Amino acid sequence: MKGKVYLVGAGPGDPELLTLKALRLLQSAEAVLHDDLVSSEILRLIPATAQLHNVGKRCGKKTILQDEINFLMVALAASGLRVVRLKGGDPLIFGRAGEEIEALRANKISFEIVPGVTSAMGAAAAAQIPLTHRRSSSAVVFITAHQAPKPRAAKRTFDEQDIREDGLDWSKFVGSGATLAIYMPGRDYSDIARKLTSAGLAAETPCAVISRATTSNQRTHRTTVRELRRAPKLAAPTLLLVGDVVRMGDPVAIVEGFALADFSSAVEMASPTLHLQRAIGEEASL
Amino acid sequence: MKGKVYLVGAGPGDPELLTLKALRLLQSAEAVLHDDLVSSEILRLIPATAQLHNVGKRCGKKTILQDEINFLMVALAASGLRVVRLKGGDPLIFGRAGEEIEALRANKISFEIVPGVTSAMGAAAAAQIPLTHRRSSSAVVFITAHQAPKPRAAKRTFDEQDIREDGLDWSKFVGSGATLAIYMPGRDYSDIARKLTSAGLAAETPCAVISRATTSNQRTHRTTVRELRRAPKLAAPTLLLVGDVVRMGDPVAIVEGFALADFSSAVEMASPTLHLQRAIGEEASL
Repeated sequence: MKGKVYLVGAGPGDPELLTLKALRLLQSAEAVLHDDLVSSEILRLIPATAQLHNVGKRCGKKTILQDEINFLMVALAASGLRVVRLKGGDPLIFGRAGEEIEALRANKISFEIVPGVTSAMGAAAAAQIPLTHRRSSSAVVFITAHQAPKPRAAKRTFDEQDIREDGLDWSKFVGSGATLAIYMPGRDYSDIARKLTSAGLAAETPCAVISRATTSNQRTHRTTVRELRRAPKLAAPTLLLVGDVVRMGDPVAIVEGFALADFSSAVEMASPTLHLQRAIGEEASL
Repeated sequence: MKGKVYLVGAGPGDPELLTLKALRLLQSAEAVLHDDLVSSEILRLIPATAQLHNVGKRCGKKTILQDEINFLMVALAASGLRVVRLKGGDPLIFGRAGEEIEALRANKISFEIVPGVTSAMGAAAAAQIPLTHRRSSSAVVFITAHQAPKPRAAKRTFDEQDIREDGLDWSKFVGSGATLAIYMPGRDYSDIARKLTSAGLAAETPCAVISRATTSNQRTHRTTVRELRRAPKLAAPTLLLVGDVVRMGDPVAIVEGFALADFSSAVEMASPTLHLQRAIGEEASL
């Protein structure tokens, strides 16, 4: 009997931003293939009996090709295991899920996709920046600033680092009034600033670099496109939000730090059976 | 003592796509203001002692102004309550959170934003469509097709229905190679199809209407921009995905239907305290 693969989003950083479905699937997984961005608190939810494979090596210590990830995932499922492919954020955005889906279909492995909270939403929440606003922005564009790796360089497996720009023309988005959420802006902000201004964006446009959003190490630096190159090099993962809505953000937004106690209580307090039973008698009053 | 407001995303439909943090906050809420799109299973998690206010009236049976929502939210928090403002999807995208944040700041009410899984991620997962792909799309644009309500019409409170297009020029996005995620496409698909083609989009571009994504009533209709006007009028809420990546989707994708048993087990299986304790001794081996 063949197994099944669940492509699951682990959320933007705070382990409490895991969904209930992801939690249930992790706790019943027989094999898990995860990226580096997944927090250790989340990895601890996986049963000790499950195979655990770290298939993301951001620091380049180990190089795994995407094809190898696909092969491993297919092989585990084909041997009958219930496999969770766990990705930071949401699995379908800048996560190379497209290639994994193709591999699963080609090998007739049944699979399901479980969405997660993507990094841009985490960053916006952390910096209290509405991504859309009736008065200033009625669209949001998710792009990545990462340059394609050099052809001869060892291919990295950290999914988001492998995205190519493929000649994406930023001038298309600039001036549309849309908020830009730039994934993986890297550490050379002057390069991005140049790209934004040469695409026609006003130098006064506000922007914010959000580092390690939704975690206790979260930091936000609010600036303008003109001053972006002087921004401090904040720790990865970072996300850059650009647009008038950034003005509405709080540069010193303080998010309740993640605490193990919170994480425990989040699930301990959950006694849905009781709640659902209680609700039966009360449904009419809702 | 002043209370606090949590602007919380409830996810795209499946109650299991609630985050652990949202669950914890709902279970300790003293007042909840929610939209219509929030499922009854999620509302049942709220303690019976909490005030429950439905401030979204999609069918226009009741009209609440955004200002009234803001006033109620501020008043409840100012009276010392722990308030959850619960929105479908993610609170910061097409959710009028910007105005709520302004009201909270103006009244010096402390608040926190808890991101959620936005509808586009839910729809993409449900239809198994990767929103980005190395070979065909390196950007995603989130827009809304909803026309602004007529000036004299009673203002509705369903957040997403109040978004104005404000002259957003779709031609900016079309031809960029980006995937388009169109929120609230409404039921007049021919209008959207016209808008897309007049913006320069090829009539052969694949697209998919996804209705009630991630719920057991989910339906997907895959077509092209040319044939879009002939698409069946699927039940709201719907989302329209447009772009080459739609070709990679599965038009008959079957998602494990939501079951109350799953929802219960998702939280019941969660005994993080045990897991965390166990993990202490095993951390080194991870």
